Amino acid sequence: MGIIVQKYGGTSVADATRVRNVAERILYTQSKGHQMVVVVSAPAGKTDELLALAKGVAKNPTSREVDMLLATGEQISISLLAMAINDLGGKAISLTAAQVGIKTDNIHQRAKIKEVASTRILDELAKDQVVIVAGFQGINSQNDITTLGRGGSDTTAVALAAALNADMCEIFTDVDGVYTADPRLVPNARKLKEISYDEMLEMASLGAKVLHLRSVELGKKYNVPIHVRSSFNENLGTIVRGGSLMEQGKIVVGVAHDTKISKLTISRVEDQPGIAAKIFAKLAEAGVNVDMIVQSASKEGLADISFTVNKEDAILAEEVTTAMMKELNAQKVERDDHKAKVSIVGTGMISNPGVAAKMFNGLAAEKINIEMISTSDISISTVISENDVERAVQTLHDVFNLEQ
Amino acid sequence: MGIIVQKYGGTSVADATRVRNVAERILYTQSKGHQMVVVVSAPAGKTDELLALAKGVAKNPTSREVDMLLATGEQISISLLAMAINDLGGKAISLTAAQVGIKTDNIHQRAKIKEVASTRILDELAKDQVVIVAGFQGINSQNDITTLGRGGSDTTAVALAAALNADMCEIFTDVDGVYTADPRLVPNARKLKEISYDEMLEMASLGAKVLHLRSVELGKKYNVPIHVRSSFNENLGTIVRGGSLMEQGKIVVGVAHDTKISKLTISRVEDQPGIAAKIFAKLAEAGVNVDMIVQSASKEGLADISFTVNKEDAILAEEVTTAMMKELNAQKVERDDHKAKVSIVGTGMISNPGVAAKMFNGLAAEKINIEMISTSDISISTVISENDVERAVQTLHDVFNLEQ
Repeated sequence: MGIIVQKYGGTSVADATRVRNVAERILYTQSKGHQMVVVVSAPAGKTDELLALAKGVAKNPTSREVDMLLATGEQISISLLAMAINDLGGKAISLTAAQVGIKTDNIHQRAKIKEVASTRILDELAKDQVVIVAGFQGINSQNDITTLGRGGSDTTAVALAAALNADMCEIFTDVDGVYTADPRLVPNARKLKEISYDEMLEMASLGAKVLHLRSVELGKKYNVPIHVRSSFNENLGTIVRGGSLMEQGKIVVGVAHDTKISKLTISRVEDQPGIAAKIFAKLAEAGVNVDMIVQSASKEGLADISFTVNKEDAILAEEVTTAMMKELNAQKVERDDHKAKVSIVGTGMISNPGVAAKMFNGLAAEKINIEMISTSDISISTVISENDVERAVQTLHDVFNLEQ
Repeated sequence: MGIIVQKYGGTSVADATRVRNVAERILYTQSKGHQMVVVVSAPAGKTDELLALAKGVAKNPTSREVDMLLATGEQISISLLAMAINDLGGKAISLTAAQVGIKTDNIHQRAKIKEVASTRILDELAKDQVVIVAGFQGINSQNDITTLGRGGSDTTAVALAAALNADMCEIFTDVDGVYTADPRLVPNARKLKEISYDEMLEMASLGAKVLHLRSVELGKKYNVPIHVRSSFNENLGTIVRGGSLMEQGKIVVGVAHDTKISKLTISRVEDQPGIAAKIFAKLAEAGVNVDMIVQSASKEGLADISFTVNKEDAILAEEVTTAMMKELNAQKVERDDHKAKVSIVGTGMISNPGVAAKMFNGLAAEKINIEMISTSDISISTVISENDVERAVQTLHDVFNLEQ
């Protein structure tokens, strides 16, 4: 039988009872004949607790040392889970990223996995061990500990599944799977049985934070099927995979939304070649990630430029652009923190030219004003007022018949 | 300038303020031109906290996994201390035992260091880094994490000092140094400037728990001078070392005592060859560590055998010997938990035959009854009633003029 990689998040190992529940679930899956590799995050709250310790001893804790500190969180989880499995009569062994050989680049606190060694894990699997691996962490070329950023344990799990050629990577989380829209906003949202990597990437980058983005990219690259499912029940969740999907060709598979954006508008800029480039080069320099950009039609040689950024970058973006006003001959810079992005996603829309019109008509019928638009091959995004988000998501869900 | 290895215990890194104080002390020593390697224990209380977590998930936590869990304690200390030093403008890097290459045998929870690699530490010292190393832990031949047992960080420090050929190994602790007797019992006890490895080993094994025994053995083997000193002040402590000592040749350097012993007596055993061997083989099999043994003179072919064990092994020892009563034809087994061992230590006593008599006379003058006696080249130990300990230690301290 093949290898299954399971990933459990921090809430699943937050206390002794939950650790023992997870241990039982793992042994149950193993009893069906699978070889088990399990990735675990730090216990819920542990990472914040450790960061607070760091802040206690240093104003700006060194990145390398923060990674050394944070890595203890997963080390606690893996050892406790291995003990619990052994105590239940199973056989388990825990391994840190260093012991497995999860090699990353040198960027502390947001490292990328470059290579995963499989020897030690395969050796332990051959001894019928459940292998428990610390998520979120790796080692760089100097054997220093790195971490992959928040949510990085998903990526560890998919990377291991790829390296071990696993049959499936199961991500246990606090949601049931991937829905056609956020069920908190849309009561008749439907859980998807399957979704393609590309659609999942769009959904994730557009605000549906079920999986760590990088884990989906890795899944796509190595063709690892990822089963997103609930840690609270036995229901099947959503399988993210390539190949021919049952729902493939559906024009729209889901509606995503993101309320954590701000919109900035630079008014009446001289409409000359290179002006936009100048603005966005400065923003990039300052580390501001710009998402959507719209330049209005020129009137009397002047144009308005609007763009969106993450809400947390908004003040910095305003400072950078305000400092450029003279140089740009701009009239004013406005920041609006009460915007939201609503998007539809589906691989089928490439070959269906009427999709955008249907979307805009649907929103117009509800008197929802669209302020910005951007499109990709498999998504269309709009910026609207934050107050309209709930109605907009429900409307689009209805317009594209997603409950069926 | 040479390398200094410093070791700080768990109370020294128990909170942010203390971590910053230790950081300042390290930078101060470095400023005098030394290359600094620092060994740290887990924050005070952390090891017990982690053990409680383990007990929460498993009745008998697997040794290997306990070591994986416990090792996080020192990893927290080293990263926080490195951050604090960096924050104060210094340069520090933390290293786990795995990163240093502290190789041990495979006995989890009480591993012995076999080899220490120096490359990584020397590389970092060459970059003017303060190198902060996790105490108490190592890795075995499979790269699995091992721990050295309580107090093991002392041993880590001495092993590093040996491998790096350091000028000095400084052990910062909650006492000022090694005293001629326990200052809580003997108000005029005197701090020793120096003591030889052998004397320190005797003092330690006889109950003066200032240093981890194994660290002194390693110090002796590799001739590493060990400076035991207070983490609360700048006073010089006691230097444990070889070579010619100022106080060498002193008949007695100290009085040690140990109240954590129990005495067992097997009465009226047939006095045949091999009887004692049989008893102590069985005890060894059961894992009971027997210390002193006395066999009374035979009367009518019967003898009494008394021996002492650690108090925590006493009940087990009683069970083992009681089970043998029939086989031994013994009359009864008695256990007494209210005994204590009082010893005098000094290299000079080898060539001074009157020392034992002086000791016994001193105790007799105080009407303190001696129940058992054992001797080594550099120590004489007696077992007395627990109630007499304080008077006995003070008396011997006076008799041998140790306050001078």
